[in-house]
Amino acid sequence: MKTLKIPEATIIRLSVYSRYMAQIKRKGIVTISSGEIARGVGVSSAQVRKDLAYFGEFGTRGVGYNVGELYGYLMKILGLTTQWKLVIVGAGKLGSALAMYGGFAERGFKVVGIFDNDPRKIGQKLDNLEIMDISQLPKIVEANEAKIGIIAVPAEEAQEVTNILIKNGLKAILNFSPRVLSVPDDVVLRNVDLSVNLEILSFYLDAQKR
Amino acid sequence: MKTLKIPEATIIRLSVYSRYMAQIKRKGIVTISSGEIARGVGVSSAQVRKDLAYFGEFGTRGVGYNVGELYGYLMKILGLTTQWKLVIVGAGKLGSALAMYGGFAERGFKVVGIFDNDPRKIGQKLDNLEIMDISQLPKIVEANEAKIGIIAVPAEEAQEVTNILIKNGLKAILNFSPRVLSVPDDVVLRNVDLSVNLEILSFYLDAQKR
Repeated sequence: MKTLKIPEATIIRLSVYSRYMAQIKRKGIVTISSGEIARGVGVSSAQVRKDLAYFGEFGTRGVGYNVGELYGYLMKILGLTTQWKLVIVGAGKLGSALAMYGGFAERGFKVVGIFDNDPRKIGQKLDNLEIMDISQLPKIVEANEAKIGIIAVPAEEAQEVTNILIKNGLKAILNFSPRVLSVPDDVVLRNVDLSVNLEILSFYLDAQKR
Repeated sequence: MKTLKIPEATIIRLSVYSRYMAQIKRKGIVTISSGEIARGVGVSSAQVRKDLAYFGEFGTRGVGYNVGELYGYLMKILGLTTQWKLVIVGAGKLGSALAMYGGFAERGFKVVGIFDNDPRKIGQKLDNLEIMDISQLPKIVEANEAKIGIIAVPAEEAQEVTNILIKNGLKAILNFSPRVLSVPDDVVLRNVDLSVNLEILSFYLDAQKR
């Protein structure tokens, strides 16, 4: 896919800044300096200025940034002025927890369907969502214009599910399974397997002993 | 911290290979080629050979790898021959889901405590774990020799909790909060905030429209 030349670490920090600005905005604060943002989120103020500079000129020297303006701008950059609909495949422990996780909605992500192929799970309710048969996925994706798919199935099934999601026009995939997935160039993929993350920690912990 | 010069992407793939080898081993298969591993996990066979070569000579030309040996070796490299004890701070929806998530135990990670500061939560049971007051953390960490801490508290409290974990000797932190955390050089930190990961997707989806 065509990507802007912005390091991923910058995007992560922009996401962090935007939450901090939301918090500051709720307090009724009107202007803020890069130093205050830096202290609030735990990075250097040079870093804050550098990250924001990717997107053009911002703020007024000696005055700082207008909180409402900067917040709106960050949300726009992050693509969060649109409500993104997402589907989850796999209604095991992890998929179910994700379906009920409140943090997504706060940032404008709406889970419009959760799917499984286990007849014992289909029809069960998770908050307001009913677990549906995977065969219902095309209909739900189309009706809701879902663009993001979450993979929460076992490793063995992950590529097959990915292929189904791609065939149904999803362009972004968040993969929680411990499987390296192949996707076409126009699909963006993020891997967030929890155990893999823990294993990166254990690798380093163990390396310290060597 | 002192790190080996191994790219993180390699460690992630080693973790993936090790699961695949566990699966192959259960089927009773004795030898496997890099091509078969590659097809099984979805990377090129050159990639498999390159990743394994970081750790010395492996396999026999024309014969392939001994499954049991390679599996044992991968688990050792990943630090998974030790059982790692971990503590979770924050017993909200996410922390509770993590405490009950079966996937950690499968790979030798054991949750030995979950902590909160909300009196309404303390004493509640999550499977076999009782939510404890954060004041109990030092005792539990010491008694279990816990080395890994999971941060599942709101952003505003994340740095304070991190400081507590570090003060109690934890050397590895998995951060689920949307906060940039400061840690000393001898502590390894991984950030896995779920919404941030979704926002990286929305950033790219939105960028495609520009």
